[in-house]
Amino acid sequence: MTRVTELDTPAVTVRLDIVERNIRRVHDHLARLGIANRPHVKTHKIPALGRMQMAAGAVGITCQKLGEVEVFTDAGVADDVLLTFNVIGRAKVERLVALTRRLRRLAVVFDNDVVARAISEGARAGGVEVPFLVECDTGFGRNGVQTPEAALELARTAMRLPGLRFEGLMTFPNREPGTRAFLERALELFKRDGTAVPVVSGGGTPAIFTAQSIPQLTEHRAGTYIYNDRMVVASGTATWDDCAMRVRCTVVSRPTADRAILDAGSKVFTSDLYTVTGYGHVLEYPEATVVTLSEEHGVVELSACRARPQIGDVVEVVPNHCCVVSNMVDEVYGVRDGTVEAVWPVAARGEVR
Amino acid sequence: MTRVTELDTPAVTVRLDIVERNIRRVHDHLARLGIANRPHVKTHKIPALGRMQMAAGAVGITCQKLGEVEVFTDAGVADDVLLTFNVIGRAKVERLVALTRRLRRLAVVFDNDVVARAISEGARAGGVEVPFLVECDTGFGRNGVQTPEAALELARTAMRLPGLRFEGLMTFPNREPGTRAFLERALELFKRDGTAVPVVSGGGTPAIFTAQSIPQLTEHRAGTYIYNDRMVVASGTATWDDCAMRVRCTVVSRPTADRAILDAGSKVFTSDLYTVTGYGHVLEYPEATVVTLSEEHGVVELSACRARPQIGDVVEVVPNHCCVVSNMVDEVYGVRDGTVEAVWPVAARGEVR
Repeated sequence: MTRVTELDTPAVTVRLDIVERNIRRVHDHLARLGIANRPHVKTHKIPALGRMQMAAGAVGITCQKLGEVEVFTDAGVADDVLLTFNVIGRAKVERLVALTRRLRRLAVVFDNDVVARAISEGARAGGVEVPFLVECDTGFGRNGVQTPEAALELARTAMRLPGLRFEGLMTFPNREPGTRAFLERALELFKRDGTAVPVVSGGGTPAIFTAQSIPQLTEHRAGTYIYNDRMVVASGTATWDDCAMRVRCTVVSRPTADRAILDAGSKVFTSDLYTVTGYGHVLEYPEATVVTLSEEHGVVELSACRARPQIGDVVEVVPNHCCVVSNMVDEVYGVRDGTVEAVWPVAARGEVR
Repeated sequence: MTRVTELDTPAVTVRLDIVERNIRRVHDHLARLGIANRPHVKTHKIPALGRMQMAAGAVGITCQKLGEVEVFTDAGVADDVLLTFNVIGRAKVERLVALTRRLRRLAVVFDNDVVARAISEGARAGGVEVPFLVECDTGFGRNGVQTPEAALELARTAMRLPGLRFEGLMTFPNREPGTRAFLERALELFKRDGTAVPVVSGGGTPAIFTAQSIPQLTEHRAGTYIYNDRMVVASGTATWDDCAMRVRCTVVSRPTADRAILDAGSKVFTSDLYTVTGYGHVLEYPEATVVTLSEEHGVVELSACRARPQIGDVVEVVPNHCCVVSNMVDEVYGVRDGTVEAVWPVAARGEVR
């Protein structure tokens, strides 16, 4: 049995007890609300963790790219998958059709009829039917139809195309203030049109614990909650004790009294900042600030710390954004009581297509 | 022969004619100055490109992590390697000693005696001698001894240890204003001490074309110049025509008149910003701004563009920082005259240890 202290650094570790508690807590919360839980596997990209989420009662999984669907289908994690990304291009439509044959249900989202028509053609040629949700931009400013009227129009257009089956609406994240009003109006329009909307899918980890404020939701997609990170802590929906992912780093230099250098930089942590300042939370030195990252160096400012690390010390750092850190490494270590219980290849790492 | 237009997206491509020109231009410039060229392979992590740099006259290569040295040694790229990262921990020292036996010269840098002593012990036990440079912080605020006096003191301490051989001084980047004064004073101290300093190693792509202002330099380490990127263009030392790396992306959505969504986000481009705003330069729409990245989405603001892309169009984006983009993908495509001439596995991708 390898002790966590024997791992060479940098090493991306996750605490299994926290992972299990996070999975349970979120699943129970959504179950109490009567909202189906469809965890987003882009956070971990590890089939074993997807299986843990399914075992806890998830209705299926969410993937962000086709390559993730392929990896998780090969691993037999779930037979009900939602792919929340517009599929474009002949090669991708062919992969989608092939996957459709392998899964009980593979639903897609789209927000425009160019995508709808291409999938329809592929589905018709392949003799399959592809269920779809219309992606709605309820305030985030990314993909999505801009109005409830446009959602209905796109749904009606796509329903007329062969090989497509309308299943509902999708948005991300559902904490945007306009989400409830958008969905209310959309459901009214669909009702007036006589079109059933079996699925209304919301997403985002900080939005989990306010999901009750969007009564239209039938399912929720969240990824980050399985590990949590500095951004989730900053959002107020987790504490450091809920953060399962800890990047073990060695202090390789102490050039000045106030500066320490870690052996992990943007090629482990990435430069994601979002809502926070600094690049990580050093658990042993909570007053420290990871002020800058080079590719392989983390520069830590210690002036606020009474105790300070020495060269050779190993520290554990909670990253800003766990979903991108998973994608930087080939394996993640599952740790319990100081022992490495699992070494998981990040099977869908780099699956950007 | 695959045409570049047949590649599925996102795809990280590099223009071979530009790569060749960049290699030649930088090598010739350093040769004119009498400065040895030791390209940093962390930018591309591809042995075939390291071989092109060696064929152009490079004296050897620079690696940032031991894993890169291993990959490039396995590939037989160069027999003279400089590892510019403090090596700490028994496992890493053992790997270093093993590599030392396989290479004509594997030099390291360090900035503290904890590292020096551990390498000395490993070298003695392994019966090898490890050449070293003292890393100096000449203004960047990362690793490095803080004063010329400290450089001499560390060099003298390490020279007394078995298995270590002093070879010189190293800094990054050499464009920091204090660099010349630091090196002048250090060389004066070493001279007074009777210690020869055969190597003074500077680095950084924007610093290449001002290397003549630091007459102490005997060699230069640069990585980015082989591809160039938005940061180098912003520094004034390259134009868009010098940017070899282009990320091919498909426009998957046009949610509004002013917004396009690309199928590549921070899991291809990373969130590196440094000195620039926005996350990439869209070659076909130079007035466009890549305003935000999600993990798999690039959000492009088009309000300044007269012509605008349609859903399904493929665009080429010059990333902010090419060195981190290489590390996100499993392969890079070498393109000439619209044809894919090489598909290179990014052999040292993810080598963070």
